[in-house]
Amino acid sequence: MAPSRSYRDAGVDLDAAGAALSGIRDAVESTYTPRVIRGLGAFGGLFRAGDLPERPVLVATTDGVGTKTRVAAALGRWRGIGRDLVNHCVDDVLVQGAAPLFFLDYVASSRLEPAVVGELVGGMAAACREAGAALLGGETAEMPGVYAAGEVDVVGTLVGVVSEDRLLDGSRIREGDALLGLASGGLQTNGFSLARSVLEDRLEMTMPDGRTAGEHLLDEHRSFLPAVAPLLDAGLVRGAAHVTGGGLPGNLPRVLPGGLGARIDGSWPEPAIFGTIRDLGSVEETEMRTVFNLGVGFVLAIAPEDVERAVALSPEPLLHVGRVVRGDGVHWT
Amino acid sequence: MAPSRSYRDAGVDLDAAGAALSGIRDAVESTYTPRVIRGLGAFGGLFRAGDLPERPVLVATTDGVGTKTRVAAALGRWRGIGRDLVNHCVDDVLVQGAAPLFFLDYVASSRLEPAVVGELVGGMAAACREAGAALLGGETAEMPGVYAAGEVDVVGTLVGVVSEDRLLDGSRIREGDALLGLASGGLQTNGFSLARSVLEDRLEMTMPDGRTAGEHLLDEHRSFLPAVAPLLDAGLVRGAAHVTGGGLPGNLPRVLPGGLGARIDGSWPEPAIFGTIRDLGSVEETEMRTVFNLGVGFVLAIAPEDVERAVALSPEPLLHVGRVVRGDGVHWT
Repeated sequence: MAPSRSYRDAGVDLDAAGAALSGIRDAVESTYTPRVIRGLGAFGGLFRAGDLPERPVLVATTDGVGTKTRVAAALGRWRGIGRDLVNHCVDDVLVQGAAPLFFLDYVASSRLEPAVVGELVGGMAAACREAGAALLGGETAEMPGVYAAGEVDVVGTLVGVVSEDRLLDGSRIREGDALLGLASGGLQTNGFSLARSVLEDRLEMTMPDGRTAGEHLLDEHRSFLPAVAPLLDAGLVRGAAHVTGGGLPGNLPRVLPGGLGARIDGSWPEPAIFGTIRDLGSVEETEMRTVFNLGVGFVLAIAPEDVERAVALSPEPLLHVGRVVRGDGVHWT
Repeated sequence: MAPSRSYRDAGVDLDAAGAALSGIRDAVESTYTPRVIRGLGAFGGLFRAGDLPERPVLVATTDGVGTKTRVAAALGRWRGIGRDLVNHCVDDVLVQGAAPLFFLDYVASSRLEPAVVGELVGGMAAACREAGAALLGGETAEMPGVYAAGEVDVVGTLVGVVSEDRLLDGSRIREGDALLGLASGGLQTNGFSLARSVLEDRLEMTMPDGRTAGEHLLDEHRSFLPAVAPLLDAGLVRGAAHVTGGGLPGNLPRVLPGGLGARIDGSWPEPAIFGTIRDLGSVEETEMRTVFNLGVGFVLAIAPEDVERAVALSPEPLLHVGRVVRGDGVHWT
């Protein structure tokens, strides 16, 4: 059993779950970096922190994936939810310029199915490996009466690190900075209440690309770490925002200094699922913009003179989203 | 709004919730240590880690409080649940000899009531202050359909630190060591499935001390940090176990080296609630022992020659629980 991952309280039938649990152990251990102290730490995961960068700042976030779990339950697909959870947290600490160190998870349901837990943790472990994060611990809980039958909640906590002199806090953002975006893979993990209110009974509907609406809704929450890391390393990023619930209007102001706002004057490809929701639900554009990312999952503020270098360094296209302007709030032109 | 505590996705009515949220902000900020970087970190909580002990090992744990939440919901008392959650995590990292650094929480329900969140976070903040932990971040989620009406789940993650040469991993435990216990305050946060199956319809029943059975069930999960810290500082602790689900038989073996077991030959005061559950539920003693702590919430392995010093140093009575013996498992004499 991996350090500090406790199935004992979960009421899971350990014999029936043997294969799944063995797979979980392998998956978890595949994420271990040399900093993890193995085989110990029955009550807590152990992580050596003696070689952190100069003036280290730990950046920590806890999050879930909202009611995306209900779509996963309806489709019986859980692996992606594990990836979503890790990537969401990776992107949250990336906003501050931090690189992941370790991750812990919590999986709860009215009655846990080992196969579901196995898929979830397998997905988390894969995303942790890709992010260089150790899956340091986890907890499972069966809470009949608290959770509705068949429903699952997942919660993740990620701790990352950044040197204090490289910490992004938005204070370096200036009027005239370019706002460059990275493409989202779809809804990511936000806006599922609205999306489900429109599509809940149409999950099997075929979309133009031949996949179902349900499959589109489960499209992965991307990790923006591989795309952003080269730009961070080059010192080109003045500020960043993760476009979660609230869309651009809800998230850009979280990192803009006082007296500055954003003008959105770009256009970019919009994943098809958003048009489907807009049309079938007759959702006003204002609401669409404040609920969904509409195709931009992460935004970087970059000095005008650095844009060319950033575009050259970026491993993927940088979308022109807009510009930092005097004022406040986020406005479309 | 405190760093990285997001109510935006929660659907909470911010106007109606104004007073509660303002109270939450004050409570959260009351936990800040000088290591917390304030006012920044919209997406992640920021914690300076430049002055950790030599050869630092971070010890991390994620946990919930199980279906103790259902008793809290029935009685409408949430503050203690917040304290339980933090203290449970504090005790989990204490097992490895670690002192708390920071804590993050997650609170989810079908529909969040600001007053409930306020009570929960208020309780967490108080327990964090007592433990010296910063309440660095949190997330709330409303997930109708996932959670049953009126039910709440809470999840906490604590990160602590210990110098690697003071890390407790059980390897220093020897045959003949004394197992000394610290009194639990009751069920702590484990065994609630069984307890509720016996007492769910009798929560209003008056117990001999005049308090109700429900109140007894909600008795606080103690933090053992103040009691154990002086013994850790004096280097007297060879190993430790937090007596959670599984009782002594489930938790002592988690820290005992191979080839060693425990003989339980002590006796100690048992909180009244256990006798009530045993009698009303006709629960066999074997089951009682493997589900509940039965009055011992934390166990220390101490060399025989150090027992006298430990008893003198301890700010509270150390219960004689038993002894480390050759063999395996946990046996009562």
